[in-house]
Amino acid sequence: MSVLRLGLPKGSLEDTTVEMFAKAGYKIDIQSRSYYPSIDDPEIECVLIRAQEMARYVGEGLLDCGLTGYDWVQESGADVVEIAELVYGKVGRAPLRWVLAVPNGSDIKCAKDLEGKRIATEAVGMTKRYLAKHGVNASVEFSWGATEVKPPHLADAIVEITETGSSLKANNLCIIDTLCETTTRFIANKEAAKDAFKSAKMKKLALLLKSVLLAENKVGLMMNVHKDKLDAVLAKLPALQRPTVAHLSDADWFSLTTIIDKYVARDLIPDLMLAGAEGLVEYSLNKVIL
Amino acid sequence: MSVLRLGLPKGSLEDTTVEMFAKAGYKIDIQSRSYYPSIDDPEIECVLIRAQEMARYVGEGLLDCGLTGYDWVQESGADVVEIAELVYGKVGRAPLRWVLAVPNGSDIKCAKDLEGKRIATEAVGMTKRYLAKHGVNASVEFSWGATEVKPPHLADAIVEITETGSSLKANNLCIIDTLCETTTRFIANKEAAKDAFKSAKMKKLALLLKSVLLAENKVGLMMNVHKDKLDAVLAKLPALQRPTVAHLSDADWFSLTTIIDKYVARDLIPDLMLAGAEGLVEYSLNKVIL
Amino acid sequence: MSVLRLGLPKGSLEDTTVEMFAKAGYKIDIQSRSYYPSIDDPEIECVLIRAQEMARYVGEGLLDCGLTGYDWVQESGADVVEIAELVYGKVGRAPLRWVLAVPNGSDIKCAKDLEGKRIATEAVGMTKRYLAKHGVNASVEFSWGATEVKPPHLADAIVEITETGSSLKANNLCIIDTLCETTTRFIANKEAAKDAFKSAKMKKLALLLKSVLLAENKVGLMMNVHKDKLDAVLAKLPALQRPTVAHLSDADWFSLTTIIDKYVARDLIPDLMLAGAEGLVEYSLNKVIL
Amino acid sequence: MSVLRLGLPKGSLEDTTVEMFAKAGYKIDIQSRSYYPSIDDPEIECVLIRAQEMARYVGEGLLDCGLTGYDWVQESGADVVEIAELVYGKVGRAPLRWVLAVPNGSDIKCAKDLEGKRIATEAVGMTKRYLAKHGVNASVEFSWGATEVKPPHLADAIVEITETGSSLKANNLCIIDTLCETTTRFIANKEAAKDAFKSAKMKKLALLLKSVLLAENKVGLMMNVHKDKLDAVLAKLPALQRPTVAHLSDADWFSLTTIIDKYVARDLIPDLMLAGAEGLVEYSLNKVIL
Amino acid sequence: MSVLRLGLPKGSLEDTTVEMFAKAGYKIDIQSRSYYPSIDDPEIECVLIRAQEMARYVGEGLLDCGLTGYDWVQESGADVVEIAELVYGKVGRAPLRWVLAVPNGSDIKCAKDLEGKRIATEAVGMTKRYLAKHGVNASVEFSWGATEVKPPHLADAIVEITETGSSLKANNLCIIDTLCETTTRFIANKEAAKDAFKSAKMKKLALLLKSVLLAENKVGLMMNVHKDKLDAVLAKLPALQRPTVAHLSDADWFSLTTIIDKYVARDLIPDLMLAGAEGLVEYSLNKVIL
Amino acid sequence: MSVLRLGLPKGSLEDTTVEMFAKAGYKIDIQSRSYYPSIDDPEIECVLIRAQEMARYVGEGLLDCGLTGYDWVQESGADVVEIAELVYGKVGRAPLRWVLAVPNGSDIKCAKDLEGKRIATEAVGMTKRYLAKHGVNASVEFSWGATEVKPPHLADAIVEITETGSSLKANNLCIIDTLCETTTRFIANKEAAKDAFKSAKMKKLALLLKSVLLAENKVGLMMNVHKDKLDAVLAKLPALQRPTVAHLSDADWFSLTTIIDKYVARDLIPDLMLAGAEGLVEYSLNKVIL
Repeated sequence: MSVLRLGLPKGSLEDTTVEMFAKAGYKIDIQSRSYYPSIDDPEIECVLIRAQEMARYVGEGLLDCGLTGYDWVQESGADVVEIAELVYGKVGRAPLRWVLAVPNGSDIKCAKDLEGKRIATEAVGMTKRYLAKHGVNASVEFSWGATEVKPPHLADAIVEITETGSSLKANNLCIIDTLCETTTRFIANKEAAKDAFKSAKMKKLALLLKSVLLAENKVGLMMNVHKDKLDAVLAKLPALQRPTVAHLSDADWFSLTTIIDKYVARDLIPDLMLAGAEGLVEYSLNKVIL
Repeated sequence: MSVLRLGLPKGSLEDTTVEMFAKAGYKIDIQSRSYYPSIDDPEIECVLIRAQEMARYVGEGLLDCGLTGYDWVQESGADVVEIAELVYGKVGRAPLRWVLAVPNGSDIKCAKDLEGKRIATEAVGMTKRYLAKHGVNASVEFSWGATEVKPPHLADAIVEITETGSSLKANNLCIIDTLCETTTRFIANKEAAKDAFKSAKMKKLALLLKSVLLAENKVGLMMNVHKDKLDAVLAKLPALQRPTVAHLSDADWFSLTTIIDKYVARDLIPDLMLAGAEGLVEYSLNKVIL
Repeated sequence: MSVLRLGLPKGSLEDTTVEMFAKAGYKIDIQSRSYYPSIDDPEIECVLIRAQEMARYVGEGLLDCGLTGYDWVQESGADVVEIAELVYGKVGRAPLRWVLAVPNGSDIKCAKDLEGKRIATEAVGMTKRYLAKHGVNASVEFSWGATEVKPPHLADAIVEITETGSSLKANNLCIIDTLCETTTRFIANKEAAKDAFKSAKMKKLALLLKSVLLAENKVGLMMNVHKDKLDAVLAKLPALQRPTVAHLSDADWFSLTTIIDKYVARDLIPDLMLAGAEGLVEYSLNKVIL
Repeated sequence: MSVLRLGLPKGSLEDTTVEMFAKAGYKIDIQSRSYYPSIDDPEIECVLIRAQEMARYVGEGLLDCGLTGYDWVQESGADVVEIAELVYGKVGRAPLRWVLAVPNGSDIKCAKDLEGKRIATEAVGMTKRYLAKHGVNASVEFSWGATEVKPPHLADAIVEITETGSSLKANNLCIIDTLCETTTRFIANKEAAKDAFKSAKMKKLALLLKSVLLAENKVGLMMNVHKDKLDAVLAKLPALQRPTVAHLSDADWFSLTTIIDKYVARDLIPDLMLAGAEGLVEYSLNKVIL
Repeated sequence: MSVLRLGLPKGSLEDTTVEMFAKAGYKIDIQSRSYYPSIDDPEIECVLIRAQEMARYVGEGLLDCGLTGYDWVQESGADVVEIAELVYGKVGRAPLRWVLAVPNGSDIKCAKDLEGKRIATEAVGMTKRYLAKHGVNASVEFSWGATEVKPPHLADAIVEITETGSSLKANNLCIIDTLCETTTRFIANKEAAKDAFKSAKMKKLALLLKSVLLAENKVGLMMNVHKDKLDAVLAKLPALQRPTVAHLSDADWFSLTTIIDKYVARDLIPDLMLAGAEGLVEYSLNKVIL
Repeated sequence: MSVLRLGLPKGSLEDTTVEMFAKAGYKIDIQSRSYYPSIDDPEIECVLIRAQEMARYVGEGLLDCGLTGYDWVQESGADVVEIAELVYGKVGRAPLRWVLAVPNGSDIKCAKDLEGKRIATEAVGMTKRYLAKHGVNASVEFSWGATEVKPPHLADAIVEITETGSSLKANNLCIIDTLCETTTRFIANKEAAKDAFKSAKMKKLALLLKSVLLAENKVGLMMNVHKDKLDAVLAKLPALQRPTVAHLSDADWFSLTTIIDKYVARDLIPDLMLAGAEGLVEYSLNKVIL
């Protein structure tokens, strides 16, 4: 039987990933201390791999595909195919960024000011490419962790990943440039992407995973509307997604069902009530494919 | 930009309140040890305040509005406007009450018997007003906690809040009168309630919060019914809330959708099946506006 | 008032059982250390009882009914009526089995080889009946726990319950026979089953509990389909459960709602999209009665 | 090399036992889920065994020796040798007892009243011997746990183990007789007790374990005493244990060192100070052999 | 039998207090949710009381004695006798202080600047007395908690308890005056202090508790010293506490034992080694009475 | 004031290190998320640094001294001075080793067989030096973690740290060579080691830390011996460490005090009792300097 060798990211994304697969319909069991989780699909074999190493192993064909950050794909320099971008997390969140940060009040104001300085980072390659692009010579030191506490004593500047910047702020650092934004990617080995079985399997996985991530940001709305109010209510709904309108037995009334972005519900629902919606309910969704 | 200053109750209602706002569409982040939670709406600023102090600060205009118990609104004597009553918790729960309790077998049988006695309570004002109403003189001592363990050695009677009375019973006390029932209220400063922006914002919040609380006690039912059974099935449904009836493509069948109280489902569903409902499913709701 | 005395299994199934009753609409409160949980139905009284003892107490009429495993019903030899089989847990899981296991490499290959050997088990009766059936004489010792670590030093073979066999494998044992498969049963005392009130009450409970367990393995699908694609989409759906098809206001479109097994969704959804489904959403269900 | 096979009690005494061995100088490592702990003495092999089964396996020679309760030695009827009694726990604690308990207000007042009744217990053998001794016929049912909640509905009386009786009291039961007091015993197989190596090894273990248990109830006292006060101070000390008296360089002073029971220190120390002790210090002990 | 009614402080000092009594030789058992802990001395009865209320109940004679802070003794205005000061915690820690704090950059620089301002505090009495002393009129509001987050929006200044000031600093406040330093006190009712039994019992308790607290800050040192080095070594030892010097069998050597402050050991031990001490050991002490 | 900048190892050794300093007399407070712990000695400033980076920062003079493993000192290639070796942990434990491990049954049997293979390790430098020493060409890949699960699929061999080898064994690997044994070292910058203040401070720290580590493996023994038995008892004691022998007031008796290795106590104590020791007690020690 053909089998797809799939790398799952060990560490901070691990639980979220398992949960996302569960919603997609795949039960992954991670035994404590084991790196070879079981999955209830005989056509898939899973391995837990650090995000930093994923692209290397996929690129070399030791794995057919895997999930990792765009940053580590770039950092590794591996030659892989992107199957899908998977935006974990809720709408409205800032994307993860690798930034250049320096102590508040530092003389370093831009890339050029890094000449001759000491930079600590976990992403040595990305930082060196950035310096090269700006024609700057500086010492880039691999940091084993806690990079944000190093300036000013142990480093002049750092290149670090951040979502809200609050950890940097708490360490009295300010951001002076962004090197790269990053999201999770579903990547594949080039040969695997040409294999009929593996390609079909990966596309199906991508479809399901994306439907789960989309559903996290959507809710369903159901309401009754009198025929006299129908136009007014429909006018309030986002244009993009056509609502489902059904006649009720009572010919003067319609049932209206639609899918909207979760974060607009708090503004849209009061408007819909004003426009004449009645018996409105909002409910959660597991998967959405638009 | 106009901003609504909103007080959230610190302590036992804190987590429930954050969760209720989340369902209403507002993400509140409480950093550990911080009393100024972030909220993903630039038009709102939050502060965590003890329920006991909320009405005071709203009344004085240091806050525009806040959530607290009716008891503490009364105890504070603050002059505030009530926007909405928010009944947290499930249907069927007894309301929270402030009661007068004495040791089992005590000579104190009613308010009059308190003459000259020592009463421990956290609600000194409410207790004094109660005594005044009954024309009784007694010593009212502020209790810093664990009030229910004080009788008979450290107090003759107590005025204490209770839901089921089980903690009082466990301490060998019996309830001889109720001073006040209490629920959570969304209160506003009088000036804020007259401000166009703030008033609209508070009404919208109230609509959404109430839709969430209502949904906690409701479920959706969907079923198919043959035209010959439709009247029998409809007769079983609660009169108040009109079900949504739609023709199916097969002209002999109807789809019937309705919202019912969660606690009647266990009795209603067996009845509906007997009356001829088929393919019945029950599902959860996030928000309900009837 | 008539009351149904209901035994709930203390131990590993306890939390799952309380959760299942909650979904069915019954709130059970287990106070820590108490064996008499409260339930929000005055017509039911609950007792927590070990699964091993349930059938004995139901059989003797000390309880009207209870939930326990088929294995312990058999082991007890009690004369009880089965109201319903309740398959907890997800589709695809192996059933619980009582198996005969011996150390890898043991000379014991089948029941006959047990002659004169020492067998440790918690199910002494079941094991003795098994030996009798095979005409074998062996010593059966009651094991107070950790049975699987006893061979080869403290026992030659064991009879033990297992789901996946992994604990046995980890202790270097192999399974050579299966004595009994077991699932949870809702059992009743014979007299109680003839009592009108109790019988009706138990049937209602069984209906609700089964609807909850069924819902755990089902999801709802809703999608829009153009009239030209309707047949193709319908052809993909499982034959057994008729989907609900409704005309939309736009006469060219249909709304299609159906309930499918959770575990087929991952294969079915991609197929439905290919067949022409649009705006597909999947949602969870609390109860399903087909 | 000769090896002593030692059974350690799995369950409630497990942690205490490992700690006691550690103080005695033996490091036992219990891997999670393993029943064969490692010990840093190549002459000993450990197995974790339920206290209930220990005597059986020691008696049959599957183990050379083990620690278990006197109750389970009796219940098993096994023919073993007692090496030492090990009184775990602090002075002043009531011993563990197996008692006959009945509901408050029951008609059962003594053993004779049990005739024809139903008794639940985990110690079936002990209970049957007790009934036989009193010439009473009653039904003795093995209880799988939670025995104390069974009366009055599921049993008329119980035989249960208790230290303070508080759990029985909390379940509204009263004790009407004591069947047996019990402490931990270090028991040996009869053949092993005759083996020179094993016997010497077990005696050494017993010496060390007893020195640890003794030290838990003792403290060391050191004080300086002027020659004029020496007799007064010595007179206060318990007669049994001779204190160590040493001349100090300053010929008028003595240093006095002694070991006393921990629980008398609180009364003795104030007396010693009054009698003229100076610079008194109390310190803890790991092992004491008197 | 005579009995001493003793109040123990409920809350932050609770565990430390129980531990201190345990070291003193008294085993206190606090059942969860109970406010009447058991103690293994029939001559004492314990009650858990909030530190804020202790002096009131001792003063009124509802308790014979209790442990609470000096601050709350003062705040209550109760007329009680101090038996002992009990300095919990390690040497070197700053004492607990009630301080006046204002936002960094506030115009309030000293007590006089408080005129007409709003002050939040849990110690209303202490604050009012402080204002009176300085002839200042200001509004003092009782704060139910989280006082340090109130300035500048909900208060202009606060009076709050602090050890290191770090929580104030974290809330951007600076200390501008100290109202009171406080330590734990063992206080007694005036009548109880005159009763022979109660007075003796309290003195004994005080002696033991103080010996425990002293021991926490002391260690024992033992070393051997050659006669030629004895003077040099003795010269290094703190003058206050005379060491115990004993001849060894080998007439050229002395054994030297002494008790020193824990926090000087790190400096003293290297000095003693240089001066000629040999075979030096340091050990812990349970109780010390000098 | 002069200050010593001290690096403490972040991570697995962190708690042990703080505890060791506490026993040495230095209170280190690590605020959650802070990397600059406070220490109660104004002459020392602490930083938490990963063990992997410690030698680099000490070598470059960004820190005066620090604690890290010998392995990482070597791996960094930093030019630092060793002040002391600090053997954490108990006597009898195997030292930590970096080993070369391959899958059981691999063709790789020694260093030479690594030619052309893929090796995963966190210690890239150490591995490359090892390969160079053996004249072998192989690919050395930096491993971000979970190195031991990589063979055989993601690596042919690994170089990994281990104490007991059990994690390697659990992953079906066998050790074929040891590259380096490692213990914790207290290292200093070369310039700092020449500075009078810093050098004295580091020596004092080393003396105290070593006395704490020594004490963990020692216990004190105190016993009384009759003059007739003195020689026999002394003959049993280890020769190296001279016991302290003092005359008691009763001229026929001696008090004998000595310090022995914890792990010999279990054998020595029974021997001493046989030789005539009486009233023997064993006690713990905080610090030992021999």
